[in-house]
Amino acid sequence: MTPVYFDNAATTKIRKEVIETMVGVMEENYGNASSTHSFGRSSKSLIEYSRKAIAKHFNVSAGEIVFTSGGTEADNLVLKSAVRDLKVTHIITSKIEHHAVLHTVNQLEKEYNVLVSYVDLDENGQIDYGHLERLLQTDKKTLVSLMHINNEIGNLLDLKRVAVLCKDSDALFHSDTVQSVGHYKLDLNAIPVDFLAASAHKFHGPKGVGFVFIRKGSGLKASIFGGEQERGFRAGTESIHNIVGLEKALQYAYNHLEEETDYIKTLKQYFIERLNIEIPKVSFNGLSENITNSAYNLVNICLPVAPEKSAMLLFQLDLKNIACSKGSACQSGSAQISHVLAEILSDDAMQKPSIRFSFSIYNTKEEVDYVVGVLKDLVSA
Amino acid sequence: MTPVYFDNAATTKIRKEVIETMVGVMEENYGNASSTHSFGRSSKSLIEYSRKAIAKHFNVSAGEIVFTSGGTEADNLVLKSAVRDLKVTHIITSKIEHHAVLHTVNQLEKEYNVLVSYVDLDENGQIDYGHLERLLQTDKKTLVSLMHINNEIGNLLDLKRVAVLCKDSDALFHSDTVQSVGHYKLDLNAIPVDFLAASAHKFHGPKGVGFVFIRKGSGLKASIFGGEQERGFRAGTESIHNIVGLEKALQYAYNHLEEETDYIKTLKQYFIERLNIEIPKVSFNGLSENITNSAYNLVNICLPVAPEKSAMLLFQLDLKNIACSKGSACQSGSAQISHVLAEILSDDAMQKPSIRFSFSIYNTKEEVDYVVGVLKDLVSA
Repeated sequence: MTPVYFDNAATTKIRKEVIETMVGVMEENYGNASSTHSFGRSSKSLIEYSRKAIAKHFNVSAGEIVFTSGGTEADNLVLKSAVRDLKVTHIITSKIEHHAVLHTVNQLEKEYNVLVSYVDLDENGQIDYGHLERLLQTDKKTLVSLMHINNEIGNLLDLKRVAVLCKDSDALFHSDTVQSVGHYKLDLNAIPVDFLAASAHKFHGPKGVGFVFIRKGSGLKASIFGGEQERGFRAGTESIHNIVGLEKALQYAYNHLEEETDYIKTLKQYFIERLNIEIPKVSFNGLSENITNSAYNLVNICLPVAPEKSAMLLFQLDLKNIACSKGSACQSGSAQISHVLAEILSDDAMQKPSIRFSFSIYNTKEEVDYVVGVLKDLVSA
Repeated sequence: MTPVYFDNAATTKIRKEVIETMVGVMEENYGNASSTHSFGRSSKSLIEYSRKAIAKHFNVSAGEIVFTSGGTEADNLVLKSAVRDLKVTHIITSKIEHHAVLHTVNQLEKEYNVLVSYVDLDENGQIDYGHLERLLQTDKKTLVSLMHINNEIGNLLDLKRVAVLCKDSDALFHSDTVQSVGHYKLDLNAIPVDFLAASAHKFHGPKGVGFVFIRKGSGLKASIFGGEQERGFRAGTESIHNIVGLEKALQYAYNHLEEETDYIKTLKQYFIERLNIEIPKVSFNGLSENITNSAYNLVNICLPVAPEKSAMLLFQLDLKNIACSKGSACQSGSAQISHVLAEILSDDAMQKPSIRFSFSIYNTKEEVDYVVGVLKDLVSA
């Protein structure tokens, strides 16, 4: 069996067309975009064309898109500057955010003595909107940071609802949209979010490039200092091939969004159906069995396996050439517990192995059949 | 005339072999290096192989090399963490450092109330080692940040001398070696520097990747928070193709160092000779006419041109298909004055146009002849 890559929430294969475009840039456009001569101008125009094209997808202006080295840097930029430059003294977030948000918030808590509130979650990891509203009733200058799609369990946040709540309470709203940009259309003219973070390698673009949307007039400032690149928002010579690759990948993603979404959604549904038939005692973490309220490309399952057998499960899947992601403590010698599952699962469920499977256009029903077959064998072994 | 690219200190053309290697990685190795399955492990091993190979060039251990998105981020990482985590309260630097250092130091001055001392410079931009020694006589916890090769005028710092001075005074020493890594061999076992910053695109590698050398046991910590990548020194999914590209470019650079240095040095010497013959009143900024004490690939010249004509000079060179870099205020409508030249040149010299020409293996003597001819015409016009 050719290896099955069911870990597309971790990263995706770069599209062939994206690589080709990047190679063209690397071969032809090596000028430094800060140089005023023809080599520099042609690099600069590639970057600015990319910025405009990206902005258009989100119905915002080009000046509101700032390129970064990825989603993590984008999250860091927003959170740090919100505290340092916008004088935010209160951050509302949740315990199941990505570490790029949680660890940065913890650092700001230590360094700037920011008050951090965590919004309540139900057993599926859904946020308690009423609790969020109550947390927003404060005189402190507040930033809310909640991700659009949870990277481990796939839960979808009602982005607009949170954005409007924040706006009504004069709070700033940042969303880590690393799992949704390129997979869902976002009209930022209709959604009053202040900041978004995105990463190219989650939608078949290159690794090491992302962007942050910074709404005009926000007052946000740079966190990396030096040259005047990115209109002063982010110093450092631009990674032109990566930026152009990001744009190309996003363009492909949004131009083929409907057909690709349908294809991947069908795979997810088929995976769920087959699992429910072959392993009746399987359970689904978060809302990932729900096709409407969770990402169409991701399932997080808890398998009915005894604790003593569960430690080896991911290792056995790897031996069977299946790439997926661990979802709990009990795998392949890793000491890391999923902070997301630890937050929402019962102690009993945490004893069983949880695994995230995430799909892309490069996956097939045959692969689903193969993986479900392997899982069935492992569970009944 | 094919365009002449004499701006290799701004950035360089990527080597063909480097692009080929990067394409291979993008096509074949798309796993996330943090994943434990086979896709992830093969990405991880590429990164770790690169880290080891790079470390070897500098005679250090792999664990002392941390990949970043470039030189600017590398400088920022060192300076910020030195103040925040190592409790440095005094930074000694010079007014002709790169903005990645100067602007970061200014930010730390504002944010952490760090004392900043600037070492004296002579009219050629040479640092006053005696003054540095006196500045080091302090009880404050001190970090010295001085670049190895000045990016505008090419002056070479005596890295070992400064490193030993710092060591003798219990000060930390960071050097921005963005212009020297890949162009000069550095044995960090012999030079007791604590931190170095480097960037791939200065030695025919990709843009958007660099590294910082952090000597073992320094106590330095991350400035971008999130995942556990780079052993906790730098969160964010690794740009594998860029990292492998960096390693490949460095390997080529050091494997062909002698022949390529000789070739480029000959071009520089020829350029200086031709200039002195054709434009006798030309002068050289910094030490750039001195082949021993300045970078072998860079010349910064001041042309005997009346102020009223000098504003258009760079624009005219661009029209003649010559890419070079402005060295003073008087060019192509730019409002930016070179902070380096402003620091060392007389008011009189600052009225004349200064231009930086920087060479690579892809340049030729014919190009030098062409450029000197054009300069002669412009000066005598």
